[in-house]
Parts: sequence; structure tokens; C-alpha cells
Amino acid sequence: MKRLWHHCHAATMVGGRYAIIEDAAIITEGARIAWIGPRAERPDLAIDEAHDLAGAWVTPGLIDCHTHAVFGGDRSREFEQRLQGVSYSDIAKAGGGIASTVRATRDASEECLFEGARKRLINLLREGVTTLEIKSGYGLDTLSEAKMLRVARRLGDALPVTVRTTCLAAHAVPPEYAGRPDDYIDVVCRDILPALAAEGLVDAVDAFCENIAFSTGQVARVFDSAKALGLPVKLHAEQLSAQGGASLSARYGALSADHLEYLTEADVVAMARAGTVAVLLPGAFYLLRETQVPPVALLRVHGVPMAVASDLNPGTSPVLSLRLMLNMACTLFRLTPEEALAGVTVNAARALGLQESHGTLEAGKVADFVAWDIARPAELAYWLGGDVPKRIVRHGEEMTHE
Amino acid sequence: MKRLWHHCHAATMVGGRYAIIEDAAIITEGARIAWIGPRAERPDLAIDEAHDLAGAWVTPGLIDCHTHAVFGGDRSREFEQRLQGVSYSDIAKAGGGIASTVRATRDASEECLFEGARKRLINLLREGVTTLEIKSGYGLDTLSEAKMLRVARRLGDALPVTVRTTCLAAHAVPPEYAGRPDDYIDVVCRDILPALAAEGLVDAVDAFCENIAFSTGQVARVFDSAKALGLPVKLHAEQLSAQGGASLSARYGALSADHLEYLTEADVVAMARAGTVAVLLPGAFYLLRETQVPPVALLRVHGVPMAVASDLNPGTSPVLSLRLMLNMACTLFRLTPEEALAGVTVNAARALGLQESHGTLEAGKVADFVAWDIARPAELAYWLGGDVPKRIVRHGEEMTHE
Ligand SMILES: [Zn+2]
Ligand SMILES: [Zn+2]
Repeated sequence: MKRLWHHCHAATMVGGRYAIIEDAAIITEGARIAWIGPRAERPDLAIDEAHDLAGAWVTPGLIDCHTHAVFGGDRSREFEQRLQGVSYSDIAKAGGGIASTVRATRDASEECLFEGARKRLINLLREGVTTLEIKSGYGLDTLSEAKMLRVARRLGDALPVTVRTTCLAAHAVPPEYAGRPDDYIDVVCRDILPALAAEGLVDAVDAFCENIAFSTGQVARVFDSAKALGLPVKLHAEQLSAQGGASLSARYGALSADHLEYLTEADVVAMARAGTVAVLLPGAFYLLRETQVPPVALLRVHGVPMAVASDLNPGTSPVLSLRLMLNMACTLFRLTPEEALAGVTVNAARALGLQESHGTLEAGKVADFVAWDIARPAELAYWLGGDVPKRIVRHGEEMTHE
Repeated sequence: MKRLWHHCHAATMVGGRYAIIEDAAIITEGARIAWIGPRAERPDLAIDEAHDLAGAWVTPGLIDCHTHAVFGGDRSREFEQRLQGVSYSDIAKAGGGIASTVRATRDASEECLFEGARKRLINLLREGVTTLEIKSGYGLDTLSEAKMLRVARRLGDALPVTVRTTCLAAHAVPPEYAGRPDDYIDVVCRDILPALAAEGLVDAVDAFCENIAFSTGQVARVFDSAKALGLPVKLHAEQLSAQGGASLSARYGALSADHLEYLTEADVVAMARAGTVAVLLPGAFYLLRETQVPPVALLRVHGVPMAVASDLNPGTSPVLSLRLMLNMACTLFRLTPEEALAGVTVNAARALGLQESHGTLEAGKVADFVAWDIARPAELAYWLGGDVPKRIVRHGEEMTHE
């Protein structure tokens, strides 16, 4: 089935720029883009169906490259308690914080986790997200981590979205290993990772490198195990303090290092050399009321690709809108709207290892795109909240989300 | 027509608290609430229609008490330019900033202004807004200000929302009065206000008191004219510096003083005595990357009612979601979710002079309410972006927005 999509402008995002084609035409063949260019240069192909996009701006389908979308419970009660003046330590003593999400996730049935995540994902999909990553990391034992990633795979089957799974077993020390983080890392490396990889549940391996989580030495052990299993790695790094996690990631050729508020120039140089993507997460920065921003100017100077993601999670980023993250990346981190849009398309694809097939509008790539009813691409980052009217095409087929 | 709404909990917001009724029932008669209370105490009335709310949480319909929703053009190009490093002064020299919105608004047909605002309002209404205020202030001459407020009135006729109009002719000095602000204030007092009031276009009068706008002396003249016309007043005050505008407002018994980042304790005391509502606008605070927050603790101590609004405008707050403002009021200003919800219901009604008829769930009030599919009211402030599933009832009738 050959389809023509025309009467539009295209922000192709090739090379990380808008790379605009005015008065563009796109020809899709099945799930792929067969041709894209100025309408006047359209090749003489037999078209089965023509779609008039009514002057819309077409961008690649949005890619959310960092989410913890599968979890039990939520933390709205804790959100309220903190604003009522209850201290973090009192909340933790009462079993709150990540421990409460681990408990709720372990206790939840696979069906319940699926249904909760499905409802959250619908919000992202309605906004034009056609690819997203989902991490484990609230199970912290083999069965519960596997349960989370099975749910992630099922979401990809049930919804019109491409899901990439990431095993984040090294997210926190589970209660039964309190005070024995190295013993838990043994379990991650010897039991959890190999078991989940054998089930085909793991597209990449992640860890949380921070003084409240795991050291670079512990992360290196996780990365060694991932490498032995042939799995790419990524890392939660330099969010609350400079730990050297980003440089470590670069040494392992990581797909991405994420958060990066405390990134040093040496880290930036290492990431540039390794081709590691910097994934910026302004939602968590905003909600934690951080003041140290990631070194965007250095990332620009050294040519490190910047991605932007929701970090959707119940504790520090209950974010159900990737477009809101475009505004926050601009407002809080001073990305340009063009950089922010590259951050949820071409660079997000790279952070997931999907740069050959996703993230730009080019012949040969998967036909995932969004036709927005806007006057210029900057509007996507400009409006705060609300719905930007759009048509969503995934794998060459127009979607309706309701 | 008597309708029963049951199988729900109610956050009635009476007294500015959740004031929860568990397992509640609401009986509406026509456009009014005839009875609300615990289901077990339901009076024995003949009911024409029963609606099962499936365990939802019911709140009053949301009220956005400060918007500039009618305007020509948008400022997404300027948003992008600033992030590309173009200075404010260069943008102003090129005719940008508020001057560009004034030009676009004066040039726009009434139909075009209506259609642009209608699209924006749909976003707010879908989220459960049933009452909102719309200001003029981009016309700055009699005909253009009248055009804006006619559009505001038409929006209230065309959409299922109660619209209150505010004349903000004293928003900025128009280009033809550059350097002669007092002459323009003469025009506002002698021509614009009386003409618009005579047309029935003005529910309240507002001004912008700031070193980049009008002085307290100039504002006092506008307020005197408003009083002479029998119109209530409100004020953009203490946003960027302490000007004494809030105290001035209190002396005039203003409905509200809005923004208030630089409010002093003396201002707070004056507002408390006058019953003037403090309208907090976290969207503009966020977008301007302000660091001085309104003195919320002082407002609490002195019992000044706090409202929260979108400030929807093309320059400093292109906000299409009032629920996002709940989160920003909590995250940035440290309101509790309960205070934030009071800020878009009971206290927002007071800021519009509608406290007798709107803003709480009580017998005799207008039957505007929202039934939210959530586990606790705090979720309304907790989730960032996305859609919280809901049913919206306005004037006793269930609405569908699509
Ligand atoms: Zn994360
Ligand atoms: Zn305003």
C-alpha cells in the first residue's frame, strides 16, 4: 500500500536540526517512508491513497527515551504530606519513598501493573509519542523485575507504540539487602540479568549511580555483566552529585547517560568521544526544585547529542506529557525549541540504539510521524499544557487515540 | 428536572478546605444544587434521573479567575528568538513584546479573535473549567478594547462556560501615547471605561501597577473612575517590584490583587482587612524564571484567601492547563494540594465576586462540578500534564467536550 501525505511542511530533524522541507510530500510504502522531499520533486509513483494534511507541520513521531512507566500505587499521598510539612525522613521511616513503590509493585498482579501503565501511556501516545523506553527497577528481585518487563513488552503489543525495555535492577538496594549493597549487586549480576536476558526481556541495562544508590565500582560490575550478555548499557548519572558515572558510561560505550546536572567537562569530553547521548530530564529537576542545571553549553561545544525525556515515575517525575518536557527543557535548561525537538526525536532514537530506523523523516526509515496544526515548530515547546491538534501516523497508518 | 448524582465522594471546598463528604449524594434541580450530603441521609425526593459516578471524587467546577485569553497572533517566534540568544531589547526594538500583541490584536477581525480564543478555551474546558475571567488590554483604544470584550462575551454564549469580563485598558501605554502615560490614563478614565461600561461589557476593572507600566497614582485615577461607574476593581500588583499596588487595591476594596511576588507584610495585612483575594500566577513566575516567591506563609497567617490562575497570555504565560497550575502552585510556591484546589474553586469564585453562587458544593449554588476518576484529591495537583479522566457537569447537565 503506497500512501501520499502532502500539503504540509516537514521538520525532518536530520542532523539534529529542523532541516525543513517546505511544501513537502511524503510517500509511505507499508510501514516505511519510501520518499520524502519537496512536493514539486515528487517521483512519478502509483499512489493508492492520498492524504491532505491541510498545511500541517510534520515531525518525526515523538520518542520518550527514559520512563519508569510501570509501577504499583502512586505517591500522591506522599506528595501531599511533604507539602503539609512532613519531613523526608519521617516519610521514609513510615515506609514511604521508593520503598513504598517497590512494595506496591511487588504486591501488584501483572494485570494490575499493565492496566495502570496502559492508562498512563495513553496520555503520552495521544500527544504523538510513537516509541518509548520502559525500565524495570521497582521489583528488585528476579520474579518482580521479570514481571515489570513482561508488562512492558505486553504494552508494546497492545498499544500502537514501539517499546524498548531496560533492566534497571540496580536502581536501589532492596530491603532484604539493606546494608549489603555488594551482595545485592552479586544477585543482579549472577541471577537477575542473566535470567531476564534469557527470557528476551532486556534491550538494555541501566543502573543508578549516586551516593544514595550505587558506586561507580558497583555499576562497573553491572556493566561487565551486561557486556558479557551482549547488552548495551546506560546510566542514571550525576543527578545529585558528581560521581564520575558519566565518564564510566562513556568507557563502556553506553547508549546514554541520563540526568547529568553535576556533569563535569571531563565527563562531557568522554561522552563526546564515545558517542554517548546526554538525556536531560527537566521534570525531575523541576519537581525536586534543583538549582544546578546540566552544562548545556559544554554539551553543545563538544557536540554531545542531547535528548529530552519524561522520566515518568511516581516519586520525582509523575509526568504524563512529553510536550511539557519540551517547554521545561527550554525554560529551565535553556535549550532552543529546535534542540528540544531533536531531543525527543533524532537524539532520543540514538539513546535507544534506534538511530538507523527511527527519529528522522528520511526515506527508508519507519513511517512514524505527527502532523501538527501549528504555524511553526517552536509552538510545540511554547504552549504549556493543553492539546495541540494533530494527526498521528504510525508504521504508515493513521492512528486515533481515544 | 431533578437529578441524583451518587456513588462518589465530594470535596466540597466549603471554608477553603476539602470539607469531604464520603459516600456522598448530590441532588440537582435544573441548574442548581438542591441538596448535597452523605448518601445515607438523602432526603426522600422524587428523582427524574440517577447518575452513578462509579466511585469518583467530585469537586466544584474549576474557575480560572485571571486570563488574557483573547489576543491576536502568538509569541512563539519571540520565545524561540530569546532562547537563541536574541536580547529583550533587540526584540523590543524589532517591534516584539507586548507591542506585537497589541498590533496583532488591533489588526485582527472580531471573528479571528473569537476563533483563536475558542480553540484555547476548549483546552481549559476539557480539564473541568466551568467559569473563567477574560481581560481586555491588548487593544488600548476604545474600539479595540470593546472588540476584545465583545469576543469575551460571545465566548460565554458559545461555550459551556461562565465568562466574567475585565477591562484592562490600563495594561500598557499604547504606542501613540509613548512618553505620555498620564494622557493615556485620561483617555482610559474619560473615554474607554465609560464607553465600555455603557455597552455592558465590563464586570470589573483591572490595571498593571509596575515600574514598566503604571504608577499607584495613575492606578488610583483608574480605580476612581471605576468606582464612579459602580464597577469593582482588581490589580496586577507587586509582580516585579514592590510598588504598594496591593495596599492601594485594598483601600479600594478590590476583589483581588494578582501576582504578588514582592508583596510586603503591610500589604498582606491591608488585603486581609479588605477581604481582597491574593491571586497567585505560577505560570508567569515559572516562564520568567523568577526567584522571588509570593509570601505564602504570611498570606496564610493573616488569613488572606489565595486563588490560583493560568494568567493565559501569549507573552509570559502561554498556559492552556489550569491543572498544571495546581502542580506549579504546589511545587514552586509550596501551597498544599488542598490550598491549590481551593485556589481554583472557592477562592477563585471570590476573586470574581461570585462567592454567593459558585466555587463550592453547597445547596443553592450553581450545579457546576467535576467527577474525577482518582483515588484522592491530591492527585489533581500531583500528575504533571496528561488528562485525568472525568465527567463534567455544568448547570446540572453533563457536558461532553471534543
Ligand atoms: Zn529515571
Ligand atoms: Zn495578567
